[in-house]
Amino acid sequence: MLIVKAGGGKTINWDYIAEDAAELVKNEQVIIVHGAGATRDEIADKLGSPTKTVTSPSGISSVYTDTKALEIFLMVYAGLMNKTVVATLLRHGINAVGLTGVDGKLWQAKRKPDLLIAEGTKTKLLRDNLTGRVEKVNTELLQYLINGGYTPVIAPPAISHEGDIVNTDNDWAVAVMAGALNARKVVYLFEAPGLLKDVSDPASVLPTVTKDQLDEYMKYAQGRMKKKMLGAKKALESGVQTIYWGDGRIRNPITNALKGGGTVIHNNT
Amino acid sequence: MLIVKAGGGKTINWDYIAEDAAELVKNEQVIIVHGAGATRDEIADKLGSPTKTVTSPSGISSVYTDTKALEIFLMVYAGLMNKTVVATLLRHGINAVGLTGVDGKLWQAKRKPDLLIAEGTKTKLLRDNLTGRVEKVNTELLQYLINGGYTPVIAPPAISHEGDIVNTDNDWAVAVMAGALNARKVVYLFEAPGLLKDVSDPASVLPTVTKDQLDEYMKYAQGRMKKKMLGAKKALESGVQTIYWGDGRIRNPITNALKGGGTVIHNNT
Repeated sequence: MLIVKAGGGKTINWDYIAEDAAELVKNEQVIIVHGAGATRDEIADKLGSPTKTVTSPSGISSVYTDTKALEIFLMVYAGLMNKTVVATLLRHGINAVGLTGVDGKLWQAKRKPDLLIAEGTKTKLLRDNLTGRVEKVNTELLQYLINGGYTPVIAPPAISHEGDIVNTDNDWAVAVMAGALNARKVVYLFEAPGLLKDVSDPASVLPTVTKDQLDEYMKYAQGRMKKKMLGAKKALESGVQTIYWGDGRIRNPITNALKGGGTVIHNNT
Repeated sequence: MLIVKAGGGKTINWDYIAEDAAELVKNEQVIIVHGAGATRDEIADKLGSPTKTVTSPSGISSVYTDTKALEIFLMVYAGLMNKTVVATLLRHGINAVGLTGVDGKLWQAKRKPDLLIAEGTKTKLLRDNLTGRVEKVNTELLQYLINGGYTPVIAPPAISHEGDIVNTDNDWAVAVMAGALNARKVVYLFEAPGLLKDVSDPASVLPTVTKDQLDEYMKYAQGRMKKKMLGAKKALESGVQTIYWGDGRIRNPITNALKGGGTVIHNNT
């Protein structure tokens, strides 16, 4: 079982991903997960409700999700992006079926209605945040679809234990899902060649990182990358053996990442 | 097998539909299809790309779908509305999984790139219209999900034979799907108590209509209702025995329609 998660950047090349995945699905069970952050921000701006990013006291940034933001999230992730990705995969011969964490309670999350944020030197409590952290995965639905010859294509949001739709950290959800499915390999594709020691230098890719080094390397991670590192840590803790970070803009992006073309994170414990 | 199609009006009560469907799924295979027209129009206005409705020379109105309109369509039907409906059904204990006609090539359509429209007394050809008519249904995927204990919740768009996402007439698609699945009953729920003889008088519901009377009654149908009548005709031609048109705003809307509370259309040939 191979899980491929591609970020929501504008330069992620879905034709390249689809072309590559079409070969891989012949020999392996594949699940594809995608983001849609860049398009979400565009549509949110057009609708006059720009995405609000907040930062926790420990420096982790996340999106504040009120009712309006959740509606835009659903529109872009579950609607526009998920179906565009599914159609692209279908055109490359992959029997793709799009799902969100809501469908069949695929990603079940614990709600976090209150969010502690840092504003300058002060700490503030934001209430009614429609987010949650994925704790449980409907692996039966995924395995059932795969056994039926379909390739699941998953987008957030998730569903809370109480039945509310909630935004959720995609990388964390992928980590929990990988653990629940006993997936041994997870490929993360984004708009960089790998984890960079110097964010301004694409040649400074760190080729290998061990689990023990993850905390140390956290200092090299900028912005959203910090969340990706937390997601990687969670994936290794959940039983994933190897995580591959690779470039989602190049040809054969998955194969390239699996060959060590980006950053490989090993579970060395 | 029972197919329930609910329109996309603002006063359609999904909690009532879900409550009613939760009882029905215990004894019958159920597929739910929904529209989202009202919300689509709202979001299209907010995005500065209002929905363009065109009328064919024979008086049938439809939506002109360019790239922008298709993106909005995906956002609202496949994203916002489909997942909101799925979450509502899940809260009522239905094991709902949302799909569009794109997923697994569920609804395969023949593209109609050119659209003949009436403008005043003139006839005009609109090109590059991203629409199609559903011709083929992936019944295996639907039956597979139902056999696995899931209730499919379907929204347009469809996918063309060439692999493009295309807008499609929902009522027609439901008719083709019902035929392909050998469904004997189809319930259509909308914001009226049934087919009205006088559109301004809710008490003028026509309780029964035969297939032979459909053409005659076409004269009572206003606007979108004409398409519903064409859909009903297609459903009967596809082998559906009885079509129930009922009120989607009242309690137990499906049961009420099945009991003849709205308009019942019989296949009397």
